Amino acid sequence: MGLSEENLIGLILALVSSGFIGASFIIKKQGLKRAAAVSGVRAGVGGYYYLLEPLWWVGMIIMIVGEVANFVAYAFAPAVLVTPLGALSIIVSATLAQLVLKEKLHQFGILGCVMCIIGSVIIVVHAPKEQPIKSVLEIWDMATQPAFLAYVGSIIVLVFILVFHFAPRCGHTNVLVYTGICSLMGSLTVMSVKALGTSLKLTFEGENQLIYPETWFFMLVVAICVIMQMNYLNKALDTFNTAVVSPIYYVMFTTLTILASVIMFKDWDGQSGGTIVSEICGFIVVLSGTILLHATKEFERSCSFRGSAPSSPSLSVRLYNGNEDFFLKHDEENGSPSESMCSRRQESY
Amino acid sequence: MGLSEENLIGLILALVSSGFIGASFIIKKQGLKRAAAVSGVRAGVGGYYYLLEPLWWVGMIIMIVGEVANFVAYAFAPAVLVTPLGALSIIVSATLAQLVLKEKLHQFGILGCVMCIIGSVIIVVHAPKEQPIKSVLEIWDMATQPAFLAYVGSIIVLVFILVFHFAPRCGHTNVLVYTGICSLMGSLTVMSVKALGTSLKLTFEGENQLIYPETWFFMLVVAICVIMQMNYLNKALDTFNTAVVSPIYYVMFTTLTILASVIMFKDWDGQSGGTIVSEICGFIVVLSGTILLHATKEFERSCSFRGSAPSSPSLSVRLYNGNEDFFLKHDEENGSPSESMCSRRQESY
Repeated sequence: MGLSEENLIGLILALVSSGFIGASFIIKKQGLKRAAAVSGVRAGVGGYYYLLEPLWWVGMIIMIVGEVANFVAYAFAPAVLVTPLGALSIIVSATLAQLVLKEKLHQFGILGCVMCIIGSVIIVVHAPKEQPIKSVLEIWDMATQPAFLAYVGSIIVLVFILVFHFAPRCGHTNVLVYTGICSLMGSLTVMSVKALGTSLKLTFEGENQLIYPETWFFMLVVAICVIMQMNYLNKALDTFNTAVVSPIYYVMFTTLTILASVIMFKDWDGQSGGTIVSEICGFIVVLSGTILLHATKEFERSCSFRGSAPSSPSLSVRLYNGNEDFFLKHDEENGSPSESMCSRRQESY
Repeated sequence: MGLSEENLIGLILALVSSGFIGASFIIKKQGLKRAAAVSGVRAGVGGYYYLLEPLWWVGMIIMIVGEVANFVAYAFAPAVLVTPLGALSIIVSATLAQLVLKEKLHQFGILGCVMCIIGSVIIVVHAPKEQPIKSVLEIWDMATQPAFLAYVGSIIVLVFILVFHFAPRCGHTNVLVYTGICSLMGSLTVMSVKALGTSLKLTFEGENQLIYPETWFFMLVVAICVIMQMNYLNKALDTFNTAVVSPIYYVMFTTLTILASVIMFKDWDGQSGGTIVSEICGFIVVLSGTILLHATKEFERSCSFRGSAPSSPSLSVRLYNGNEDFFLKHDEENGSPSESMCSRRQESY
């Protein structure tokens, strides 16, 4: 339980972020339902009435606050701690969906929530202490060490192969192509977000880092990575069922981010074997909880176990962490799970 | 990962025990199937042909070896480590059922197995180191300390209330009555088994403990507790569905055993808060895996998802840890899950 003060701030920010992002889905869905009730037109079929609905904007603002908190969390705590806790937003959504939207959660879904919480506790208890960073140049040194450069190199090569060779051939039939691209880019996003966040934190603390070109370079990398990641996440979600994309994305994204963080920040140096094993176990537990929650949703949909929530439109804006669709697209789709591995857009190619 | 040599022996014995007990269910079931094929009479409807089937006896012997290994494990490692690992026998059974009996396991069942393994790893990594015990008199001192006497006193009072007040009134309608009695007695069984096992271990090592009346007292306690526990476990399993009894029993039995061990052996003294939290998390993970596995079996039965395993008879001998029925009664029951909370024998009262 040896969390430093810095790490504790990061942990609280990560938890607040998950709470806000989780709550934002539900508030936005409430807004969409109201807009649909007033206008009689669904966003999914071209209506934009939800833009006039204050509740939708409240949800949007809460989501942005949550994303900012997540960004700042990376400046205070190791990525190994912050990234897996993103799964907690699903629990907040699931709980609020039950309380506010009166959607019923299957008992396996409750077990999935318990798993996510327990796994997060294990991760938090064993999180590595981070050495305080004093300048962006320190991060630059870490980012340019041979091991991390080799990691970045292999990621770029893999992304190129996926984008130019596999995406045109089987991007619409194999869920791993688009999801793989955004997971690979995602690990670089988190590393650059952490570098930029730490630089900005130091700048706000009085030690101006904007004089170094390294800070601006990290900013450029963040922009490129975020755009790439969002673009391919949207493609993945447009092509495949959310219940299929989300768990695969969560596994690959979190695993690669932990790997990148371990290489770049040497998170595991000085940790005992038992601590590292526990961290990995905690991560697998969160992961299993996520799979269980998504599988339950899918199962409920196919077995029509779910409560009779009124239909509500889907949203074109899609979140970086892919959880939004977990609740928003829920009502829009009627495909059976067996269809979910196939492209819904396949017919247009 | 700081396991002492003694604890390591205990850990290996506990794992071997789970492997043997898990395998014994499958071998016995194979024996029962063969006996049924030869005789045309099922054990469930009065046939005892399985007693002539060598395979059934092989399974029985393997089970006894497993139970002995489990008994010896308590002499080497803390109960906090040995008891939760009992859940691993379910995984061995589930895996062998798939390989040998060709019973299909639902994907949630696989997730349940993963949970049990991961939770066990977490428990093992954080298990307390046990002080070596030199004489049965040391255990006697621990057993007669005020805190543990208070624990034993409350257990006896609770068991009396359950046996004489609740059992006649709602024993056949409320699953918690019989299951509660065997869980409460079970925690005393494990403590006395540990005391007796340690005494016998010391005796074999050359320091005769049989000269102390305390050793014989512990032997008497083991006998009383085991008989009480098996008697009420049989009643619980006869009255209610295994899929309902097993997870409830596992939760209550393991929780009470850990509580008793923590009070008597002060397992948690000298452990950090983080380690204790991790142990509890590991236990909850194993527990969730168990629930998921049992719920999946129940779910498959009700949805007729399961493979077409030939019908096979149930056995009257019932195991102390209640896992046997998980596979053996599987084919015998046809009740829907909604009926499982009701007594199957209710009509006779």
